[in-house]
Amino acid sequence: MKQAKDKGLSLDFVYPQTEHDLSDAIGEQILGEQPGDYYRDEAASAINNFRTTVLMEKADMVIALFGDQYRQWNTAMDATTAINKGKPLIIIRPKNLIHALKELSNKANVTVETVEQAVQVLEYINQ
Amino acid sequence: MKQAKDKGLSLDFVYPQTEHDLSDAIGEQILGEQPGDYYRDEAASAINNFRTTVLMEKADMVIALFGDQYRQWNTAMDATTAINKGKPLIIIRPKNLIHALKELSNKANVTVETVEQAVQVLEYINQ
Amino acid sequence: MKQAKDKGLSLDFVYPQTEHDLSDAIGEQILGEQPGDYYRDEAASAINNFRTTVLMEKADMVIALFGDQYRQWNTAMDATTAINKGKPLIIIRPKNLIHALKELSNKANVTVETVEQAVQVLEYINQ
Amino acid sequence: MKQAKDKGLSLDFVYPQTEHDLSDAIGEQILGEQPGDYYRDEAASAINNFRTTVLMEKADMVIALFGDQYRQWNTAMDATTAINKGKPLIIIRPKNLIHALKELSNKANVTVETVEQAVQVLEYINQ
Amino acid sequence: MKQAKDKGLSLDFVYPQTEHDLSDAIGEQILGEQPGDYYRDEAASAINNFRTTVLMEKADMVIALFGDQYRQWNTAMDATTAINKGKPLIIIRPKNLIHALKELSNKANVTVETVEQAVQVLEYINQ
Amino acid sequence: MKQAKDKGLSLDFVYPQTEHDLSDAIGEQILGEQPGDYYRDEAASAINNFRTTVLMEKADMVIALFGDQYRQWNTAMDATTAINKGKPLIIIRPKNLIHALKELSNKANVTVETVEQAVQVLEYINQ
Amino acid sequence: MKQAKDKGLSLDFVYPQTEHDLSDAIGEQILGEQPGDYYRDEAASAINNFRTTVLMEKADMVIALFGDQYRQWNTAMDATTAINKGKPLIIIRPKNLIHALKELSNKANVTVETVEQAVQVLEYINQ
Amino acid sequence: MKQAKDKGLSLDFVYPQTEHDLSDAIGEQILGEQPGDYYRDEAASAINNFRTTVLMEKADMVIALFGDQYRQWNTAMDATTAINKGKPLIIIRPKNLIHALKELSNKANVTVETVEQAVQVLEYINQ
Repeated sequence: MKQAKDKGLSLDFVYPQTEHDLSDAIGEQILGEQPGDYYRDEAASAINNFRTTVLMEKADMVIALFGDQYRQWNTAMDATTAINKGKPLIIIRPKNLIHALKELSNKANVTVETVEQAVQVLEYINQ
Repeated sequence: MKQAKDKGLSLDFVYPQTEHDLSDAIGEQILGEQPGDYYRDEAASAINNFRTTVLMEKADMVIALFGDQYRQWNTAMDATTAINKGKPLIIIRPKNLIHALKELSNKANVTVETVEQAVQVLEYINQ
Repeated sequence: MKQAKDKGLSLDFVYPQTEHDLSDAIGEQILGEQPGDYYRDEAASAINNFRTTVLMEKADMVIALFGDQYRQWNTAMDATTAINKGKPLIIIRPKNLIHALKELSNKANVTVETVEQAVQVLEYINQ
Repeated sequence: MKQAKDKGLSLDFVYPQTEHDLSDAIGEQILGEQPGDYYRDEAASAINNFRTTVLMEKADMVIALFGDQYRQWNTAMDATTAINKGKPLIIIRPKNLIHALKELSNKANVTVETVEQAVQVLEYINQ
Repeated sequence: MKQAKDKGLSLDFVYPQTEHDLSDAIGEQILGEQPGDYYRDEAASAINNFRTTVLMEKADMVIALFGDQYRQWNTAMDATTAINKGKPLIIIRPKNLIHALKELSNKANVTVETVEQAVQVLEYINQ
Repeated sequence: MKQAKDKGLSLDFVYPQTEHDLSDAIGEQILGEQPGDYYRDEAASAINNFRTTVLMEKADMVIALFGDQYRQWNTAMDATTAINKGKPLIIIRPKNLIHALKELSNKANVTVETVEQAVQVLEYINQ
Repeated sequence: MKQAKDKGLSLDFVYPQTEHDLSDAIGEQILGEQPGDYYRDEAASAINNFRTTVLMEKADMVIALFGDQYRQWNTAMDATTAINKGKPLIIIRPKNLIHALKELSNKANVTVETVEQAVQVLEYINQ
Repeated sequence: MKQAKDKGLSLDFVYPQTEHDLSDAIGEQILGEQPGDYYRDEAASAINNFRTTVLMEKADMVIALFGDQYRQWNTAMDATTAINKGKPLIIIRPKNLIHALKELSNKANVTVETVEQAVQVLEYINQ
């Protein structure tokens, strides 16, 4: 995150695949054409889950960013896996998602509203 | 589930709190009035998560039912916890949610479209 | 707990040794006289920890009751063990202990102020 | 610890937040003003627990220092978490706390009375 | 197993789906026709793995029977899962499979050549 | 144990194979003659370890009895496994074995000198 | 793998012992002549399993390559251990093994048909 | 080990405290005089167990060397802990200890008779 670098924090950030089209296409790109949308999605999600699992396993903490645009059940899944693996979790979500995220927020270590606040939590680790 | 009983399966079903109003109100009902919506939600979700955790811990398998009405991040969280705990998981979701649920579906043991199909999977255990 | 029985909850309650004198004396009572207070305490706590471990292992949930009288580091230890083992934990503590218990309360599933409230949480499991 | 450095031990020490005022204020500092003391404490402890969890996860051993001044239930919680995670634990406590800490001391790997003694235990690892 | 009953052992036996045709067809039977053999196999194996996982989780010990007819990679997978979960494992295999099964046999608790011998091991538990 | 029954404790006791000759012969008895003493011992110990694992998995606590007669490395192994599995462990050993058993005793929950004392610890669970 | 190096991926690859004759002979080579084929196999597989366990423990992900030549129960065992340890697993298998590998494939993270495809999955981690 | 260095293996070896007198005296050396032999042994073993735990936690594999001189219940305990933690274990023991060590040997990954053979197993990891 740019904000973290600006503050001089020496952290490495890795992300789930954020290029949405690549994320959806990667299954057929590697495994070849699939017989319909369901199978295309299954092939893509297998590879995206593989990628996320490899990266999360190496992470010391996890930040989950929720917004209004998508249903983000994959974000909820990855955030929950962080909780269950004991990897400290920060959730970032706008005020209007408080109600919808209340159970996940209750299990997260810290919930904030802005990326700036999340960076402040990271900064605090070394204070 | 009625369908399971009709087929003579001797299974006990327990559920997350499905009475929506009670689920939202339980925090203030037990802990007293809270200073605003955020705190009301936090109090309620603490008690709902406590309840779900107690019940899931005793379950041999978990069925997660997704629909169009809510964002259901709590369902995604509970389903992921089942996966992480090694409790076999069936996801039920309508066809139009295939894309949104693809990553969670990839990690579930079985994904079906109807309650009837989920009951058939349960039946198969004893065949 | 009497309150739980009055409400018709079919729960079995087990407790750490609450007879304070027996708890302090049990080491010498079984192992014979020890060479000083430190050794008397070590012998007693070994046996009390053995007892608590056996009982907690069989528990589906744990309730930790904090008050003003003792330092209760053993209660904090047993409550933390419940958290670490994934056993759902309710903390009961009076208002004046909010500040001192804030970190443990943050990790507990639910924190309440009275035994009556804890019983309401237990009741809610079956609602 | 200065004593460890003086002896030439090449160990890195990290600590829970020891600046007491910052530790209490960090919640409101990051998340904004909270509606009362309870909520201020909850916000602060969430962030302090996040910080301690990140640091302890990286630690090879844990030293818990008990004194007379505070109730230190958070210290007891962190020490117990070290035990439950299998991270070797040294407790440092003055003689007058022997009785109050007897159960936690029984579960710790080693209990000593002075920082100097704890450093001697660390030194012994490389002997 | 008939031999165990004849000896009066009070054990309950559950099995992977041994009706081969049902095992292969169960995916399409529940989920509807699939677009080709690969998808038919994937659907069937998801449900068979669900079934085996539910049953093995309840088992106190596991017996894996290897023969010449099939490649039995699923048997090797289920046997390995038993090992990794700490469920005591007996492998039954004919002499001519010694070489092919040597690594799995090395990790199993006991390897025998006949069902009769496996039953003798079960009998020995109560001797 | 007779002493536990005399006191009216409703506990079930299971044991490692205590009939020494049967324990040594069971490998060849089930698997047939082995090519020498080493192989006879390996065959027997596989089956004895299988038996002990099944029984210990079902135990709520473990009692290890050390004496002067044998080297009892298997007892030390089974006692350590109990510790590592979090099963509360009582060690019974005569005074003259204090020095040889000091490290294992340090990790056990409780160490006593007589069967009578161990039974008193068991009695205390229900007091 | 040559393909991964050609693409500039900075990964270290370690393998089970692929020199088949050495793999079969290593037991007698280190432990001396064994009394027959069964004992020769047992000695060799103990050392090969030791080697594979050491190497897999250090791996961030696991790739299992199945072919027509051998029964490869050891490959199935090692692949399953990767799954059970939460190490992301890619299976490579030719089309004609789809049916025989369907249960293991269902539990793997990703299944592909060629080494080239597996390398593409590895590449995708850093995209 | 000198043999491993002679062969050019780049391994770091750490050991339990092998200076027997220091090992016995370390408790009183750090904690001061204890009231009798039992308490002296308890103090020493706490610190020795702390040391061994720290070192073993960092080890990738464990080698346990048994001989005729001592009862070595601590060696059996440490070796069993390696097994239970999934750290690959080599046991070295002379022929005359085969019978006494048969159960532990059955659970170890590899058992050899000489240090030279153990080094050959280590060498094989990189072959």
